[in-house]
Amino acid sequence: MTTGERFAHLRDDGTAHMVDVTAKQPTVREATAIGLVSCAPGTVAALRSGTVPKGDVLAIARIAGIQAAKHTPDLLPLAHVIGLHGCEVDCEVADDGVRLRATARTADRTGVEMEALTAVMGAALAVIDMVKGIDRSAAIRDTMIVSKAGGRSGEWRRPADELPTWAR
Amino acid sequence: MTTGERFAHLRDDGTAHMVDVTAKQPTVREATAIGLVSCAPGTVAALRSGTVPKGDVLAIARIAGIQAAKHTPDLLPLAHVIGLHGCEVDCEVADDGVRLRATARTADRTGVEMEALTAVMGAALAVIDMVKGIDRSAAIRDTMIVSKAGGRSGEWRRPADELPTWAR
Amino acid sequence: MTTGERFAHLRDDGTAHMVDVTAKQPTVREATAIGLVSCAPGTVAALRSGTVPKGDVLAIARIAGIQAAKHTPDLLPLAHVIGLHGCEVDCEVADDGVRLRATARTADRTGVEMEALTAVMGAALAVIDMVKGIDRSAAIRDTMIVSKAGGRSGEWRRPADELPTWAR
Amino acid sequence: MTTGERFAHLRDDGTAHMVDVTAKQPTVREATAIGLVSCAPGTVAALRSGTVPKGDVLAIARIAGIQAAKHTPDLLPLAHVIGLHGCEVDCEVADDGVRLRATARTADRTGVEMEALTAVMGAALAVIDMVKGIDRSAAIRDTMIVSKAGGRSGEWRRPADELPTWAR
Amino acid sequence: MTTGERFAHLRDDGTAHMVDVTAKQPTVREATAIGLVSCAPGTVAALRSGTVPKGDVLAIARIAGIQAAKHTPDLLPLAHVIGLHGCEVDCEVADDGVRLRATARTADRTGVEMEALTAVMGAALAVIDMVKGIDRSAAIRDTMIVSKAGGRSGEWRRPADELPTWAR
Amino acid sequence: MTTGERFAHLRDDGTAHMVDVTAKQPTVREATAIGLVSCAPGTVAALRSGTVPKGDVLAIARIAGIQAAKHTPDLLPLAHVIGLHGCEVDCEVADDGVRLRATARTADRTGVEMEALTAVMGAALAVIDMVKGIDRSAAIRDTMIVSKAGGRSGEWRRPADELPTWAR
Repeated sequence: MTTGERFAHLRDDGTAHMVDVTAKQPTVREATAIGLVSCAPGTVAALRSGTVPKGDVLAIARIAGIQAAKHTPDLLPLAHVIGLHGCEVDCEVADDGVRLRATARTADRTGVEMEALTAVMGAALAVIDMVKGIDRSAAIRDTMIVSKAGGRSGEWRRPADELPTWAR
Repeated sequence: MTTGERFAHLRDDGTAHMVDVTAKQPTVREATAIGLVSCAPGTVAALRSGTVPKGDVLAIARIAGIQAAKHTPDLLPLAHVIGLHGCEVDCEVADDGVRLRATARTADRTGVEMEALTAVMGAALAVIDMVKGIDRSAAIRDTMIVSKAGGRSGEWRRPADELPTWAR
Repeated sequence: MTTGERFAHLRDDGTAHMVDVTAKQPTVREATAIGLVSCAPGTVAALRSGTVPKGDVLAIARIAGIQAAKHTPDLLPLAHVIGLHGCEVDCEVADDGVRLRATARTADRTGVEMEALTAVMGAALAVIDMVKGIDRSAAIRDTMIVSKAGGRSGEWRRPADELPTWAR
Repeated sequence: MTTGERFAHLRDDGTAHMVDVTAKQPTVREATAIGLVSCAPGTVAALRSGTVPKGDVLAIARIAGIQAAKHTPDLLPLAHVIGLHGCEVDCEVADDGVRLRATARTADRTGVEMEALTAVMGAALAVIDMVKGIDRSAAIRDTMIVSKAGGRSGEWRRPADELPTWAR
Repeated sequence: MTTGERFAHLRDDGTAHMVDVTAKQPTVREATAIGLVSCAPGTVAALRSGTVPKGDVLAIARIAGIQAAKHTPDLLPLAHVIGLHGCEVDCEVADDGVRLRATARTADRTGVEMEALTAVMGAALAVIDMVKGIDRSAAIRDTMIVSKAGGRSGEWRRPADELPTWAR
Repeated sequence: MTTGERFAHLRDDGTAHMVDVTAKQPTVREATAIGLVSCAPGTVAALRSGTVPKGDVLAIARIAGIQAAKHTPDLLPLAHVIGLHGCEVDCEVADDGVRLRATARTADRTGVEMEALTAVMGAALAVIDMVKGIDRSAAIRDTMIVSKAGGRSGEWRRPADELPTWAR
């Protein structure tokens, strides 16, 4: 952290505010986040093999993720109210659990990193909610923003060595 | 996962529903969850030393966690609408980042594990939202339910060897 | 309508209020509502045959219905804030379109007819939202409460001759 | 349904997403929907003659409709978060019940057909909520989008022969 | 303020929490609050005489007040999620403006003073929203809890000399 | 009030609607509101001297104010859904209580006076919620819009003689 940097959303005296972005231009912005719901091997097997009914499980996770992204301004006290103009949530059942990836898009005045991260969180919570009765070991791991594009600061991609092994 | 177990919230045909809990008794129930926002050493130093204004940072995280717990039925498609009768969120700045712990309590008809986990998530998202501008390495790790009490299934505590090192 | 009857939620002078139900007992109450999204034959065929991808369509409708039931107090100005302790939404693809049936349950102080009806509406809106691009003829028909049980007024079932043909 | 058409909000593999509309232009868009709350003759008479206090009844329905339109992104899992820049709800007491018509307007990136339809639904639910205690025959009928304007696909008006008799 | 008293919602170290009320009994509780929207004489005359259309004005204020009461847990970070089992909002046009009085009722575990006060605020905001275009002098005055009943602390009534003149 | 003026949000027949602002330009708009939570001298002393833990009190008020501003379309039935692109809430402990000032900003199609006023209300409710247990005399006073800028009607500042003494 270099000199002069500071925590977001705070004024000079450390009090919180919603930063004024009225001077920013509405341009297309996009961000992607990932996360992992680690599960026991039996749970992964169940999600894969169909030995238990799993009908709507991943559909619920996808929808929960998208709905969570819309709730970003309700969840983050200092987040702006902006348009949300696109959102994808992908759920992949892997050996270590359910791997999640969400992308949020807007054509408004701020970045949507938090919307992408909130989408991953919503999907992860929904997965936990469904597997927790059969798998108390389930946990949410390695949830982070991995890329963003658009806006003043332009494109950024998380360096590969900062990614969890499963996401490289 | 033993035979006969199944994912929560699904009917025999795999379709989603909100499980009927009208026959359950309203008793005191409590659950605790933890999580970690891992940060770069410089961010931890800033949170500790006051070289940047950090006034409301942890207050915002605590409040975001409590508000998130209230939003559980909005975020989880199949969660019940129940009373939320108590919620604590603790944030501790440690060498590895901000350690979070949340407890939710109700005197209603279902457990509040998801409320506790959602509170941790809300607080974690708020921390990320504040540090992301200065610390792109920040990530949410090891988020899980660690104990519950009350209700039919009684008391449960996550075995120590399933806890992340920082939480043992 | 017999003498002395009146519209719900209004005081003697015709002004709106939220009726005081504090003296009512929390007992198990249940209500069921139905509705139909009428579609063109081609849409029904598509929903049945899989000539178009329809993966999450009915899962989305079910979840939208359940989420809508939770939003009842937000949608109906005079509805109470009560617990929602169970909700089922069933979607059946039939020759005339998608037939919907929702049941809501509570162990609280008021009936849940409006929650059941709102669930049907939420599911119906979600179906329209997905088919409207390919089938502008789609419409929501015959949406009504068909039964209720519990509470002071006890069990009621809509007479068969008041049901739409498709629901008899 | 012609070849190549598909359900909205689904990706190639049938999974749900919020369609990316960042490339669309913010232009003025408008949509109108209708619906009917059919009532018993006695209820219609009461709404007309004032033999029961009906003070706020239609005001409540209008406001419930407008509020429902604002809740569209909460109710429809895949709806975008966009600005809502105008909404009218009209309630007419007719021989067959309460006829509803709602128009939604935006200057944002997607159409507002679902907002108009949701407004009708919200108003219809509010009418049912008020009359259900005195008229269990009440039902919501013939709810549909009847016109739209603006955006890429331009103006559309439902053919008269697809309208319910009461709306021609 | 006597020794040992403290601000609500804070723990010993001054950090915020949602107080645990699971041990409290669900009993009937009620609270009433008042407030005044002071207006220019011309506005009062218009509200009284009908020289401008004022159709839904007071209905909107009443409904806004009731809806605001339901939003109490969204607005107050540390408020519990409880049932709201009754709410009345009264609006009286007087010489000095619109006098508001709201009563909230619950059969749950905490008092509803804040629900009553929030209802007054919601109604007051709605009145301002409607008159502000013609009367920039409008302001919200003297908004306070005036009585409460039920719960452990029992009945309380604000001493007459603490009431504003218009409310004595 | 001059001839031809009218209450906002009403149509010619006095029924409510959400005014069509699609033809308005998205320009930067700003509004500021103030309010006072009057407290007993002992409460002011406690807020100042630290004889009671007051850690998060003002942080909670600031955040509650900002969150309330985001809830404006939920609270005001006829308010538009617009972007909120900036919000500040200031809380000053003074001899007469806690003085509040909030500024809201948007780059959208309508003014944000109601957002600013709602922010003050949210902060004021949060202060009352925290002090009410020790100071039943607390009340919300003199809450009003004090300035606005941007949009068609341009800049306006409330005349000094209409301001409460404490705000001049």
